[in-house]
Amino acid sequence: MTSIPVLQFDQIVRSVEPPSESWHRIARAHLDTLTKPLGSLGRLEDIAAQIVAIRREDHANAMKKAVYVFAADHGVTEEGVSAYPRAVTHQMVLNFLAQGAAINVLARLHGVELSVVDVGVDADLADVPALIHRKVAKGTRNMLSEPAMTTEEVEQAIAVGIDLAATAVASGKAMIAIGEMGIGNTTCASAITCVITGASATVATGHGTGITPDAFAHKVEIVRAIVERHFAKVAHPLPLEVLRCIGGLEIAAMTGMILAAARHKLVIVIDGFISTAAAALAIAIAPNVHGYLIAGHQSEEPGHKLLLEHLDLIPVLSLNMRLGEGSGAVLAMPILESAMALYTEMATFASAGVSGASQ
Amino acid sequence: MTSIPVLQFDQIVRSVEPPSESWHRIARAHLDTLTKPLGSLGRLEDIAAQIVAIRREDHANAMKKAVYVFAADHGVTEEGVSAYPRAVTHQMVLNFLAQGAAINVLARLHGVELSVVDVGVDADLADVPALIHRKVAKGTRNMLSEPAMTTEEVEQAIAVGIDLAATAVASGKAMIAIGEMGIGNTTCASAITCVITGASATVATGHGTGITPDAFAHKVEIVRAIVERHFAKVAHPLPLEVLRCIGGLEIAAMTGMILAAARHKLVIVIDGFISTAAAALAIAIAPNVHGYLIAGHQSEEPGHKLLLEHLDLIPVLSLNMRLGEGSGAVLAMPILESAMALYTEMATFASAGVSGASQ
Repeated sequence: MTSIPVLQFDQIVRSVEPPSESWHRIARAHLDTLTKPLGSLGRLEDIAAQIVAIRREDHANAMKKAVYVFAADHGVTEEGVSAYPRAVTHQMVLNFLAQGAAINVLARLHGVELSVVDVGVDADLADVPALIHRKVAKGTRNMLSEPAMTTEEVEQAIAVGIDLAATAVASGKAMIAIGEMGIGNTTCASAITCVITGASATVATGHGTGITPDAFAHKVEIVRAIVERHFAKVAHPLPLEVLRCIGGLEIAAMTGMILAAARHKLVIVIDGFISTAAAALAIAIAPNVHGYLIAGHQSEEPGHKLLLEHLDLIPVLSLNMRLGEGSGAVLAMPILESAMALYTEMATFASAGVSGASQ
Repeated sequence: MTSIPVLQFDQIVRSVEPPSESWHRIARAHLDTLTKPLGSLGRLEDIAAQIVAIRREDHANAMKKAVYVFAADHGVTEEGVSAYPRAVTHQMVLNFLAQGAAINVLARLHGVELSVVDVGVDADLADVPALIHRKVAKGTRNMLSEPAMTTEEVEQAIAVGIDLAATAVASGKAMIAIGEMGIGNTTCASAITCVITGASATVATGHGTGITPDAFAHKVEIVRAIVERHFAKVAHPLPLEVLRCIGGLEIAAMTGMILAAARHKLVIVIDGFISTAAAALAIAIAPNVHGYLIAGHQSEEPGHKLLLEHLDLIPVLSLNMRLGEGSGAVLAMPILESAMALYTEMATFASAGVSGASQ
């Protein structure tokens, strides 16, 4: 396992350009010629213009799509923060490979290629075929008592994401969804949200996979103690330091993939709370990443809403989901494809002989 | 043109059964066995359970889908209530048939069969191929000064919708979207919303296809005057009387199609403000219709939100669209299909060997 050379990381961070403003203007002008009242496609018009500006081409139709599910375990599960046992991370990885999970069904239905990445599952999966083997460690340390990762582990996990972004580009993908599986990782996302937005643990913590009210009160206390332990004396910690202390291996890999995908000018569809926490860190590292992100959905986790608002990202869907796996991001993809199909295939007022507005 | 025999109409109204409660329970129980935290698919679980309860079968996957666009003109356009000239109804019908409109693109992308129905366009379209010719009249009368339709016209238009529901069933459709095209018809929908919900014209009226602030103030006054003229002295007018006085030919046809489709146990996806106004009238005629309806989206028209809340319908999408044509309903279909694919294709905890929650 090689970690990311510092020079390569700096180069990626510095080379993320914003989406093209001139292509954005071209897209807006084209949308206004189509046979519909001005602006009547609402958010679909914003999405089409954003995609054209990202792709820098006018016919960004028929985009090849992929979803990456990063799996890892978390030392903090020792504290009883989840309704499910830690072994479920491993079991769900096998379920993904057996095609039985929600993300399998959604990816199949919507023509999205699925890759499952072991970046830190606490199980020996070396012989498991069809899995992408990039294990950095068998889970993180318990962040309640020590930093979750070493600096080297953070860098190695980020490198996994950077490598996969390059693979996605090489295989012609234009749009990627960023998903995860990791029992305990809403605790990371809540702690990261506290640090990034300044929110209290009470408002940034949710019920995750579905804990009882008592377990919820306990989880809030754990999140509060974690943030207090690592960042009580640091007003604006560096993003890599946030990852090291309170992140997860899958979150670091997602951050790396988002950074590199933005540099490669891919449309990046983020998923729920954990995926958005990774996006928040990527934006903190390279603010130009923001223009490449589409928030697939807003989950039921209260911290997700906080984080989306803080990042000024408007979710495409809001269906009270709280599953992860990239499910909300892949579910949004037919809407994003619809936006681009409308952009490229609708008739114009001139070509169809339809009268314009009288005002 | 034959109108609907009174006996047939009464029979349809009386024979709308609610969706099956026992199938609903079967669906909920099955959803809880799937490899995901309990309830974590949110609204998708509600949707899957509703569809199973409507279809009364456990494998309601691969549903054949259709969208019906009912087109008609409105006498009230004389009052200058729209940003677009009346001729646009006719022009857009030709655009639908030439495959250039938004609904063509969306129907094509999502595998939905499109039918365009002339139920009242003010143009001679008799020689136009591929159009469903069911013209009742060349538009309605100006409802500011007289009832929009005669009783016979209302009945004839309702019969058009009833006939098309039978055609949909005969061709194996399981899910239909109800759309429309008619310059001036948000004025009808606003007036209907006032009558049904008791809201004032100020809150039930919107900017339609995009009128100026001055034209908006004028439109509010027109809506207020229309409601005052026809229903000042009637607290709870009969739905057919609402249609006759302030409806449109396309709205009456949509009402008929919704009623008959519910009787035939189809999944009915309603679209925006006008489609929902027709659904509100169908529910007023036969309350059991409610269980067959899925609100595809919430449009930007303020009256649409009012009406959806009044009917206790939660929209699947909310993307600030305001186009009509069935566009929001068809756009929701991939989400509805996703819900059913998850229901039928996901592994169970038992089959996948995944541990359940510890609580």
